[in-house]
Amino acid sequence: MQTVYMDHVAATPLPNEVIEAMRPFFADRFGNPQSVHDVGNRAAQAVEDARTEVAGLIGARADEIIFSASGSEANSMAVKGMALANQVKGDHIVVSAIEHFSVLHSTKTLRKLGFKVTEVPVDDKGIVDPEAVGKILTPRTILVSIMLANNEIGTLEPVPEIARITRERSIPFHTDAVAAVGSIPVNVEDLGVDALTLGGQAFRGPQGTGALWLKKGTRIMPLVEGGIQEGGRRAGTENVPALAGMGKAASMAAASLADWTLHLLPIRDELARRLTTDIDDVILTGHPERRLPNHVSVCVEGIEGEAMLLLLAQEGIFASSGSACTSRALKASHVLLALGLDAGLAQGSIVFTLGPDNRPDEVPYVIDVFSRVVARLRAMSPVYQKKNKN
Amino acid sequence: MQTVYMDHVAATPLPNEVIEAMRPFFADRFGNPQSVHDVGNRAAQAVEDARTEVAGLIGARADEIIFSASGSEANSMAVKGMALANQVKGDHIVVSAIEHFSVLHSTKTLRKLGFKVTEVPVDDKGIVDPEAVGKILTPRTILVSIMLANNEIGTLEPVPEIARITRERSIPFHTDAVAAVGSIPVNVEDLGVDALTLGGQAFRGPQGTGALWLKKGTRIMPLVEGGIQEGGRRAGTENVPALAGMGKAASMAAASLADWTLHLLPIRDELARRLTTDIDDVILTGHPERRLPNHVSVCVEGIEGEAMLLLLAQEGIFASSGSACTSRALKASHVLLALGLDAGLAQGSIVFTLGPDNRPDEVPYVIDVFSRVVARLRAMSPVYQKKNKN
Repeated sequence: MQTVYMDHVAATPLPNEVIEAMRPFFADRFGNPQSVHDVGNRAAQAVEDARTEVAGLIGARADEIIFSASGSEANSMAVKGMALANQVKGDHIVVSAIEHFSVLHSTKTLRKLGFKVTEVPVDDKGIVDPEAVGKILTPRTILVSIMLANNEIGTLEPVPEIARITRERSIPFHTDAVAAVGSIPVNVEDLGVDALTLGGQAFRGPQGTGALWLKKGTRIMPLVEGGIQEGGRRAGTENVPALAGMGKAASMAAASLADWTLHLLPIRDELARRLTTDIDDVILTGHPERRLPNHVSVCVEGIEGEAMLLLLAQEGIFASSGSACTSRALKASHVLLALGLDAGLAQGSIVFTLGPDNRPDEVPYVIDVFSRVVARLRAMSPVYQKKNKN
Repeated sequence: MQTVYMDHVAATPLPNEVIEAMRPFFADRFGNPQSVHDVGNRAAQAVEDARTEVAGLIGARADEIIFSASGSEANSMAVKGMALANQVKGDHIVVSAIEHFSVLHSTKTLRKLGFKVTEVPVDDKGIVDPEAVGKILTPRTILVSIMLANNEIGTLEPVPEIARITRERSIPFHTDAVAAVGSIPVNVEDLGVDALTLGGQAFRGPQGTGALWLKKGTRIMPLVEGGIQEGGRRAGTENVPALAGMGKAASMAAASLADWTLHLLPIRDELARRLTTDIDDVILTGHPERRLPNHVSVCVEGIEGEAMLLLLAQEGIFASSGSACTSRALKASHVLLALGLDAGLAQGSIVFTLGPDNRPDEVPYVIDVFSRVVARLRAMSPVYQKKNKN
C-alpha cells in the first residue's frame, strides 16, 4: 500500500543529520551544562551552538533566545510571563480569536488573576484587521499576542502592520510563530515584534524543543523557576541532545527553506485545487493566497473529520483534522467557528501539512482515496442525502 | 589518566538500554501521540507504557503521573499550581529553608501575587522538625512543600511524619523527591503525600524528563497550557523518545535499586570516612546516617569549591560544589547557610554523587588527589595559613 504522510504539523520523522547531531550527547559527551568541569563545559558549548543556530533561523541574537520544551510552553511563558511582569502598568491583553490554545488558555488563567482580555475577531479567511487591533488598545493594554500563521487554516496574519501600531503605543507585542518558522522566512527585525514563539518540530527538530525569542529589555516573569539556566528565565537542566538536534534542524531549514517552498507550492496548489473542484461541497478554509506554502485545509460537507481521518489512514494517507493538541478532544475547532463556518461544516475539517519529502505524484492518489472515502461517508449521512435531494 | 565520575546528580551517561528504548521514536516510529491515526496511536502507546513504568517506580497509579521536561518544571507546577488552585481556601504556604530553588523561587513569585510564605528552619544536619511544621500551620495554610532528600547535603527528611500532621488538617502536601527517586525506595502511599516531584536524570533517564505525581482529586492550576496532553494539566507535544527512555530507566531502577544500594553504601561510607579523617578541617555536611546512599558532601576549610573542582577535574575527578542548577552563579549555598555554617566554610563545599558504575577502588585515588589539591589550595590561602599558625 502506498503511504502518503501529510501531517507534518503534528510530527515529522527526524532527518538522519538531526539524529546524528543528538547522538553524542546521550552517553559519550553527556554532561550538565551548568557543571563547572569539562564534562559540563562541552555540554554548555553544545547548548550555545544550538542557540546560535536557532537564532540564525529568525535573524535574532543568540542571547535573546530562551529555550523551552515546546511551543506551548514558550507561548504560556510569553503570555502569562509578560502580562505578570507588566502588571504595574495595566491589566488589559489583546489576542486574536484564532490563537492556539496555549495562548487562549493562558489568557483564561490571567482572567482569573484579574486581567481583562479582548479577543479580536477575524474575517472569513482568518485575517486580523490591524486597524481593529489599534481601536481596541487602551492605556491599560500591556500585551498584544497575535500569531504569525495559523496552524489549522494556514492563514498568515499582518504582523508587521500590527507591530507598527503597538510600537507607536509602546505596548509589548508577542507573536506565536510556531506554524510559521520553518515554513516561511521569518525575521524578527522585519516583523517588529518584541517576542516570538517557535517550535522545533515545525522545522524537523526533535520533540521536546521550543523557544521564546525575547527582545533585549522586554520584561517577563518566569514560568519554570529555579536554576540560572536561560538567564534565570527558564529553569531546569537543559535537554542537551534535543537542543543539539534542534540547532542542526534550524541550520538545515535556514539553508533549504527557499528550495522547500519552490518544491511544495505547486503540490499545495494542485492538492487544494483538486480537493475543491473534483469533489462536491468541499471548501478551502483560510486565505487562498496569504497562507503557508505547505498547508492545505478544507471542510467537507456531510462528513465527520475523525471518521474521515481513520478511513484515510487505512489507505495509507495521514492527515489531521486541525490542531493535534486537541484532536482527541473531538470538539469543533474554535478557529473554524471564528471564520463564521457553521458547527456542522466545521466538523468536516481535514488538514494536510506537507514536508520536504512529499512529491507531486502523491496528489492523484490522495484525491482518488479522498473522493472514495467522502462518497462512502456521505452515503451514511442521512442529513447530507436529504439536503442533496432537495 | 584515571577518570572518576562522581557527579551523577548533575548528569549521567545514559545506559545503552535507555538509548535503545528512545531510538525508534526519532524516525521509524515517529508520531504525535495526539494524532488520531496509527502513526499517532503507536506514539501514544509508547507514552502510556512509559507512564506505567514511571508510576511503578513510586508505587503510584499511571493516571496520576503528569510528565514534565524537568524536576524544576514539576516543582514550579506543583508549588504555583497547587497554591493558585486553592486560593479560595487560603493564602499561606509552608516550605523548608533548604528546598531547591525551583520551590523557593516559585514561592517568591507567589509572594508577589499576595501569598504568605513561611520557611521552616532545619537543624545543623538539615533535618526539618515535624512538630515545628505542625506549629506553623494555620487555618489559612493551603500548601506544604518539603523535600524528601536534599540534593546538596543528602539529608533525608521525615516526610511521613510531616504528612501525618498535614493530613489531619487536610492541607495538601507536596514533596520534591528529585534527589530521592532512583536512589532510595519511594512509595507515595507510604509517604502519605498528595504530590511528588521526580526527575528522570536522577535514575539514569534522559535529560528533558521529569514528572509530577498528583494524587487523584488534588487540585492544581496548569503552568503550561494549551492542549489536552497530560489530562489538560500540562500542554505541549509529548517528547516521545525521551519519555520512552525515562520509562525504561524507571523500570531498570525499580529492578536494581536494592543492588545499587548494597554496592554504593560501603563506597559512600569509606569515601566520607577518609575525606573527614585523612584530611584536616574537612567536615561532612548533612546527616551522617539519614542521608542518600550515594551522596557524600563535605565542606573543606580554607579553599574555594570552584577552584577545587577545576583542579580535581584536571586529574580526572568530576564532582560538584552543590546544586548544578546554580553552580555557575558562584554564591554560597542557601542550604549550607541554613545549617548554620559560616559563609567562608560554605564556599568550600564539594559534593560527590555516586552512580552504579562507581567502584570501591576509586576511593583511594579520590583521597590521594583530594589531599594534594587541598594542600595546594590551602598553601595559597593566607587566611587559612594564619589561622593554623595561631
